[in-house]
Amino acid sequence: MRDAGIDALLVGPGADLHYLTGYRALPLERLTLLVARADGHHRLIVPTLERPRAEAAGTGVELVDVGETDDPYAAVAVALTGSEEGRLAVGDRLWSMFLLGVQGWLPRAQWLRASAVTRQLRMRKSPAEITALRRAAQAIDRVHAAVPSLLRAGRTEAEVGRDIAARIVAEGHSAVNFVIVASGPNGASPHHETGDRTLRDGDAVVVDIGGTLDDYCSDCTRDYVVGAPPIGFVEAHEALEVAQAAACDAVRPGVTAAAVDAVARQRLDDAGYGEHFIHRTGHGIGLEEHEEPYIVAGNELVLEPGMAFSIEPGVYLPGRFGMRIEDIVVVTEDGGERLNTLDRAAVTV
Amino acid sequence: MRDAGIDALLVGPGADLHYLTGYRALPLERLTLLVARADGHHRLIVPTLERPRAEAAGTGVELVDVGETDDPYAAVAVALTGSEEGRLAVGDRLWSMFLLGVQGWLPRAQWLRASAVTRQLRMRKSPAEITALRRAAQAIDRVHAAVPSLLRAGRTEAEVGRDIAARIVAEGHSAVNFVIVASGPNGASPHHETGDRTLRDGDAVVVDIGGTLDDYCSDCTRDYVVGAPPIGFVEAHEALEVAQAAACDAVRPGVTAAAVDAVARQRLDDAGYGEHFIHRTGHGIGLEEHEEPYIVAGNELVLEPGMAFSIEPGVYLPGRFGMRIEDIVVVTEDGGERLNTLDRAAVTV
Repeated sequence: MRDAGIDALLVGPGADLHYLTGYRALPLERLTLLVARADGHHRLIVPTLERPRAEAAGTGVELVDVGETDDPYAAVAVALTGSEEGRLAVGDRLWSMFLLGVQGWLPRAQWLRASAVTRQLRMRKSPAEITALRRAAQAIDRVHAAVPSLLRAGRTEAEVGRDIAARIVAEGHSAVNFVIVASGPNGASPHHETGDRTLRDGDAVVVDIGGTLDDYCSDCTRDYVVGAPPIGFVEAHEALEVAQAAACDAVRPGVTAAAVDAVARQRLDDAGYGEHFIHRTGHGIGLEEHEEPYIVAGNELVLEPGMAFSIEPGVYLPGRFGMRIEDIVVVTEDGGERLNTLDRAAVTV
Repeated sequence: MRDAGIDALLVGPGADLHYLTGYRALPLERLTLLVARADGHHRLIVPTLERPRAEAAGTGVELVDVGETDDPYAAVAVALTGSEEGRLAVGDRLWSMFLLGVQGWLPRAQWLRASAVTRQLRMRKSPAEITALRRAAQAIDRVHAAVPSLLRAGRTEAEVGRDIAARIVAEGHSAVNFVIVASGPNGASPHHETGDRTLRDGDAVVVDIGGTLDDYCSDCTRDYVVGAPPIGFVEAHEALEVAQAAACDAVRPGVTAAAVDAVARQRLDDAGYGEHFIHRTGHGIGLEEHEEPYIVAGNELVLEPGMAFSIEPGVYLPGRFGMRIEDIVVVTEDGGERLNTLDRAAVTV
């Protein structure tokens, strides 16, 4: 915080609060806010109702509880005494209603994003965090290994999706974060989830799934084909496999996030699919499915050991099909380790 | 918006956006923002990647998509041309990172909460919405009817909670929103979820559960006792049943939210449990589990037909046990209708 010239962090429920204090606060309409000051006088403001849960979390931070009909922003202002005109950094995902409430009490402060500080902490995973990510990756790999038994002509995306969700839990995740089963032309929309479309012979199917296991997220994409692949699929998938592998191989300390993105993009450009790769190459992963670092053009962040992110180039042909291959990669001392290890070829079912 | 003197609403992913446009946007780190102007020139700003999903939602609003490496706030500023110094109302749950981004482009605007407008729309449910809430309530009632078969001495709260979560889905919900199984002293923390505590004879157990069914939420609490009730439980629960029924009976058009809260509070005061009823009486429910109107002291909102909320007084005895009875109530033309209809007596298992 001192390096960033920040006087206080204001962090609400979510991954930053969990990371900083161990407290998994509920996302409520009642204010929960950690005021972490550069001078070390931290306070965690909680609704009276939540005090027992906050105490049980053993945060080591002074708790201030606010009754059901009291103004929580008064407590925030007290916690910020002396920093009324300071540089205050707000958690990225704090609800705007709370930021507006705090801004109303502190009209002369400067407002910044807390992620300027917290991403430096959260981006570089500890060995324990990498172990947790590996366990989550192994669990989602086991789900993918079962996907061929669930995908077949005549079933709808939604039916397959429900079965996959049940497997995600059965393999040890405590939450299903998302299930994408995008068949045929639906695969060309990268964030299509599931729908009523019935799978049929000749469909390419993108299956992109993730959950939370012991607080850390999994995320893996593989491609499947029902019966014979559609025209153009095999060549495109071969190019995608090459691009995804090349991007993974490019991961090592000292290269930038943008450079890794460029490797995947260049390979797909070379193969003639560049215009059909319409998103960044990847996103960081940890306590959240999407967090820093983002593997995207323009991000000159230099990779360091312990950073963890997805490498997931895709090819999307509108009206026809889509495909994406995604592994979670951790930066090691001299390269990158893929935590997802299932074969990346498209699986015929 | 004109009545409230608001020039534009800025609404991100969530229930307001879904309500206003039909679009269920994903909560991403890429900006999705509806700019709804009082002059009718609305725009929905989406990441290019999400454009197919937004188009499929048929919002009827002009779509503007922003590429992976472009600045989305520039698009927001363009959409707000002419309102740079206006009164801009921001969705309650928009992430602060996005509000800070917009504020950086529009330093002279005044910032308000969009709920000043959207709560007026969302608070009064249409007949179709009430039907949806009733279906969700019936589904969660069926789960409660099965709870006695799941609760028994020797099982942990977490084990019972997992079984209940599976039932919530089996009864038709698409999402499990929360599962509270709070046994013995854990029941005295109203938002304890589940833990490793093993149920034993003589435990009171608070079971408060909810999910989402066809976009609308359920939420119902009943109390259970394993074997013989703990000392003091029976008398307290009788007082709680009286207080909860009295508050439900007090619901009708023309009374205030605060007056309904006061009825429950007065009855528990009269019975000697007032200091142990440590939260408001209820919260609105609809697309979100907690929304307006809040049934709380100080809320002078006058109830109108179609408003829907929980009535859930509780009694919490630290170190001993807790109890809470919760039904969803809809304001009718001349009273209130409880959507949850299971018996409210504590169930011995």
